[in-house]
Amino acid sequence: MTGSITRTISGIRAPDEALRAAALARQDRLTKPRGSLGRLEELSALVAAIQGRPRPGVERKSLIVFAGDHGVLAEGIHNYPQEVTAQMVVNFLDGGACINVLSRLVGARVTVVDLGVATEYPKRDGLVFRPLGRGTGNIARGPAMSRLQAEQAVEAGIAVVEEEISRGLDLLGLGEMGIGNTTSSAAVAAACTGLPPAAVTGRGTGIDDAMLARKVAVVESSLRVNRPDRNDGFDILAKVGGFEIGGLAGAMIGAARGRIPVLVDGFIVTAAALLAVRIAPAVRPFLIGAHTSAEAGHRAILEHLGLAPLLDLGMRLGEGTGAAAAMPLVEAAVRLLNETATFQEAGVAGEKGGAGG
Amino acid sequence: MTGSITRTISGIRAPDEALRAAALARQDRLTKPRGSLGRLEELSALVAAIQGRPRPGVERKSLIVFAGDHGVLAEGIHNYPQEVTAQMVVNFLDGGACINVLSRLVGARVTVVDLGVATEYPKRDGLVFRPLGRGTGNIARGPAMSRLQAEQAVEAGIAVVEEEISRGLDLLGLGEMGIGNTTSSAAVAAACTGLPPAAVTGRGTGIDDAMLARKVAVVESSLRVNRPDRNDGFDILAKVGGFEIGGLAGAMIGAARGRIPVLVDGFIVTAAALLAVRIAPAVRPFLIGAHTSAEAGHRAILEHLGLAPLLDLGMRLGEGTGAAAAMPLVEAAVRLLNETATFQEAGVAGEKGGAGG
Repeated sequence: MTGSITRTISGIRAPDEALRAAALARQDRLTKPRGSLGRLEELSALVAAIQGRPRPGVERKSLIVFAGDHGVLAEGIHNYPQEVTAQMVVNFLDGGACINVLSRLVGARVTVVDLGVATEYPKRDGLVFRPLGRGTGNIARGPAMSRLQAEQAVEAGIAVVEEEISRGLDLLGLGEMGIGNTTSSAAVAAACTGLPPAAVTGRGTGIDDAMLARKVAVVESSLRVNRPDRNDGFDILAKVGGFEIGGLAGAMIGAARGRIPVLVDGFIVTAAALLAVRIAPAVRPFLIGAHTSAEAGHRAILEHLGLAPLLDLGMRLGEGTGAAAAMPLVEAAVRLLNETATFQEAGVAGEKGGAGG
Repeated sequence: MTGSITRTISGIRAPDEALRAAALARQDRLTKPRGSLGRLEELSALVAAIQGRPRPGVERKSLIVFAGDHGVLAEGIHNYPQEVTAQMVVNFLDGGACINVLSRLVGARVTVVDLGVATEYPKRDGLVFRPLGRGTGNIARGPAMSRLQAEQAVEAGIAVVEEEISRGLDLLGLGEMGIGNTTSSAAVAAACTGLPPAAVTGRGTGIDDAMLARKVAVVESSLRVNRPDRNDGFDILAKVGGFEIGGLAGAMIGAARGRIPVLVDGFIVTAAALLAVRIAPAVRPFLIGAHTSAEAGHRAILEHLGLAPLLDLGMRLGEGTGAAAAMPLVEAAVRLLNETATFQEAGVAGEKGGAGG
């Protein structure tokens, strides 16, 4: 691990438990029955603890989409051609993709980070261009990348988040684009959790039964051929991961260092979270599950991380769309904590025999 | 049923199925894998069909909170005093309650409608004051109100929504305030569905086991004493309902007449939806389940209505907070339909062998 990654990790401080308790105590004084905001109460307290602020804020939101291509496409188990990765990056930069629509709705900035898109495309403003290669190697036959590239991917993720923090940031959502990356993510998930490949391999963008069976076999091959060390996150990333997956893991590490809560999107971002936590366990408390996607295996790896997502709408799009869709709930939780009148302020009687008044 | 209610009901037109199909067909042309927005795709198509617009809108949002008091409080099965209804109405008018915070966040107007609050309080701007009594009768001993009052409550709900529509309205959320109204709602729910009182009676604002057992017995008494006719919504409302419950049912009828989608909040609003659909079955397609609350029995009556809510966050506050929390998801669904680029517009290749391109 490079010195800069080590320094970032060693700078992570745990969320402030005193602030968490104070936020929960304040929730009990607000004009509502105790506990009646359900999960929004814990969520508001978590954000307070993470940000280290008794009155947390989520005004400044950012959605970072990491993109990269995957050599495993050579196995013919995907139903979109590789050039779609680049075409969608252009769509993101043009503001036409689903993630752009949702980010406009929730008031989040969008940053697109190319860590290794294989197809040429016109570079535009709004793109962070830090390519580590023209797509990864085919994990069914060998490693995705070198260990140096794996470290560079994580460093790139940290750097991009540090840049976002310097612009002012309260809440981070993460997304990704990379045709083939559900395959690499399944391999990462199996390597990190020990779950069988069939339990974490899904239909991605919508492949049929026959292709799914071949996809499971490819994930099995990738583990057999590469033998990733499940105790070494960088080894897993290098052997069966992807550039954008490394960037995502780095972004989580950087966000934890900067005390920024992170909305974890779907299957690929959650696989990256497994890696981030393997590399730096202190990252875990900074992660908020945004949604449960329809991708098979997502539920299993969320449980492995102990994440109980906020939404369950059958989405399976990626790009960070689940993270963006959940942002208003985080904002709701925080604003309810900050802005709701207390029993005393409003002159409302509390619970009979309780301390609510 | 009065002539004005009959005329409103006979004016309800079913959602436009051709527009629903056109919206779903457009979803398949947007730059994303088919079906990958999950429930947001159906939701966008439903709003298009309800509003009768190929490009629906949800810019103009309104949250109406109906308030009323309940004579059943005399049974001593509630843990807040009756004056809290009036105190919370004042809190709503002052902008300090949870529903105010959420409405500000989602950009919804708030209207408070007093249909029968028992305690005096200073009237303010933003209040619609149409009292039908100083609280209802004690349903454990006799009817909640007369049949005339039940009709007036429904008429009031229709009138308030018609006024909101005249101000410009795309999406309606409904909420309520009335200490004791989970008891009346449980009686309404049992009467409408035939479910046993114990299956639809919950802890409301947080009563203990002993009080819950007494509450179930009170709901059983209310049905035994009043014998509501389960085929007659007005009879159920008059005998075991509440003024605000009637207002909510009327608001749903008025919204259906005006082609406005309605976000159904928690247990009380869902009980009112049972009544609305009993009075006017054509209302059903205009209802969108906002959330599953923690109140016991909510899930059962949602299923009875065939509503699959968008959120499940353990909330049990009422006021319309679940409806407000779900508004960004409806807005997200609609804006994704309207604003996402198509494969053709963005120059993105579609699915291999598919018609996506």
